[in-house]
Amino acid sequence: MIDKLIAGIRKTQAPIVVGLDPTLKFVPEHIRRKAFGEYGETMKGAAEAVWQFNRAIVDAICDLVPAVKPQIAMYEQFGVEGLIAFQKTVDYCREKGLIVIGDVKRGDIGSTSEAYAVGHLGQVRVGDTLCRGFDEDFVTVNPYLGSDGVKPFIKVCQEEKKGIFVLVKTSNPSSGEFQDRLVKDGDGKERPLYEIVGEQVAAWGAECMGASYSNVGAVVGATYPEQGRILRSIMPKAFILVPGYGAQGGRGADLVHFFHEDGLGAIVNSSRGIIAAYQQEQYARYGEENFADASRAAVLAMKEDITQALAARG
Amino acid sequence: MIDKLIAGIRKTQAPIVVGLDPTLKFVPEHIRRKAFGEYGETMKGAAEAVWQFNRAIVDAICDLVPAVKPQIAMYEQFGVEGLIAFQKTVDYCREKGLIVIGDVKRGDIGSTSEAYAVGHLGQVRVGDTLCRGFDEDFVTVNPYLGSDGVKPFIKVCQEEKKGIFVLVKTSNPSSGEFQDRLVKDGDGKERPLYEIVGEQVAAWGAECMGASYSNVGAVVGATYPEQGRILRSIMPKAFILVPGYGAQGGRGADLVHFFHEDGLGAIVNSSRGIIAAYQQEQYARYGEENFADASRAAVLAMKEDITQALAARG
Repeated sequence: MIDKLIAGIRKTQAPIVVGLDPTLKFVPEHIRRKAFGEYGETMKGAAEAVWQFNRAIVDAICDLVPAVKPQIAMYEQFGVEGLIAFQKTVDYCREKGLIVIGDVKRGDIGSTSEAYAVGHLGQVRVGDTLCRGFDEDFVTVNPYLGSDGVKPFIKVCQEEKKGIFVLVKTSNPSSGEFQDRLVKDGDGKERPLYEIVGEQVAAWGAECMGASYSNVGAVVGATYPEQGRILRSIMPKAFILVPGYGAQGGRGADLVHFFHEDGLGAIVNSSRGIIAAYQQEQYARYGEENFADASRAAVLAMKEDITQALAARG
Repeated sequence: MIDKLIAGIRKTQAPIVVGLDPTLKFVPEHIRRKAFGEYGETMKGAAEAVWQFNRAIVDAICDLVPAVKPQIAMYEQFGVEGLIAFQKTVDYCREKGLIVIGDVKRGDIGSTSEAYAVGHLGQVRVGDTLCRGFDEDFVTVNPYLGSDGVKPFIKVCQEEKKGIFVLVKTSNPSSGEFQDRLVKDGDGKERPLYEIVGEQVAAWGAECMGASYSNVGAVVGATYPEQGRILRSIMPKAFILVPGYGAQGGRGADLVHFFHEDGLGAIVNSSRGIIAAYQQEQYARYGEENFADASRAAVLAMKEDITQALAARG
């Protein structure tokens, strides 16, 4: 799957993933009004609003980027109805030729991680029949439980030719609270925990290689460019999924260290900055009705920002 | 909610939570046959089998224990249909007076954790209406992202009088890979990461106290009794949810350090050992048809084991 993602990045010339993380306050009023009119102010109404919003944005951006990243929490907040909208979104994006990175951050003891892996990436046996669940192309995985919480995902990736991104250094302000703690490595040298996790990502990834990168990637926040540089060298074959661009504070110039010299090796996520672009002053001219056009313009601006930053690092 | 849990433990004299972690291989053939007959070998058929299985077990054990812990991965593996069965299970258990600990191990950046917290413990605003999602009483939370990934859960706990259990030292074999790494604390002393996380649990918990324990508890595996003893003293007001009893190798004698002298402070989970008791030699006499009676007998045996172990520590 990493090879397919790289092919998509090459084709679009955009190492960009659009985060489909809808909250109702991002959904334009005319969409909310219609959905609530049909289903009431209920979970079903909310889910319908989110789904219609997503569909319009996907239609507007699907030729510009290789991938989308729905954040499952934003659907799970609406209970079962929200997860139906998540499933519709995944299916629709795949129909449109987009690679879907399910931002689920799952991770548990072995047998439980296996259930998550099967439900999100693989197939589950029901009697003599194999059934597919959410069927994303990649998912994000939390490493706190160690190898036996991650390896069941890798096994399913090998079987299904899919991939994962393991949390290494997250984009949020308090990510350092545990991830930056200095620990001793095998040589007795003190290093931050995220480097140790990064080394494990490289080791896990060796079991699941694509042509030039591994199907086991890493999540490293755009908000920590210096750590990105170090992790880029610790995990040379891991593709880095970079959240935190835009609304969380990351800028194009912060991103260059996440990429290899050939311009590959990273894919940058923006969520709010794209899906709620129409609410920003610089895209206000599109108007609420044309929110999807504003999203398209925001993708193009982000592509330009990253392209310039990569060109400028010379 | 911790006060309600403690009241339930006192009433039943059983510091036990039954893990409702059904895989299809635990579900007796007559239930599978009926469900697949009705809905085919589909996700819906699987979800129906799981739900009927759960309901019979809940009916058989609901007067013996204060709480159940459905592991959401075991439902999520069946996609949306599985999550409908999860919701039915949560609702049914609460109707029966059981406290529901959703074993979801969620955790993300602040705004995303907020969506999980709202979806699992709280209420989400849809237009002018507040709607409830999965509505468990407690959930488990992964701390890898630090305070801003945990605090949104605590905020919802305060509003809704609910609780969380934060992963500190998990029960699985490779939990030590990151959790046991020696890190320097504030005084420059080297201590394992799980102790640092435990201290944070104590600090977070101070913001969300019940009468004698906090609504912010911790997960510490039965398979690590010595670490349990240390964590018990680091987090004196945190209730400890202890997985790993039974099938994962933990025994009653391993558990005593997780409890305070007054016999409170911990609640022990068993999943397979109870829900699939009928598949074990010692309960084979019940027969597959009477699987729920075997589960009831297994709960009584576990209660006896823990009671004896606590009495014996003198």
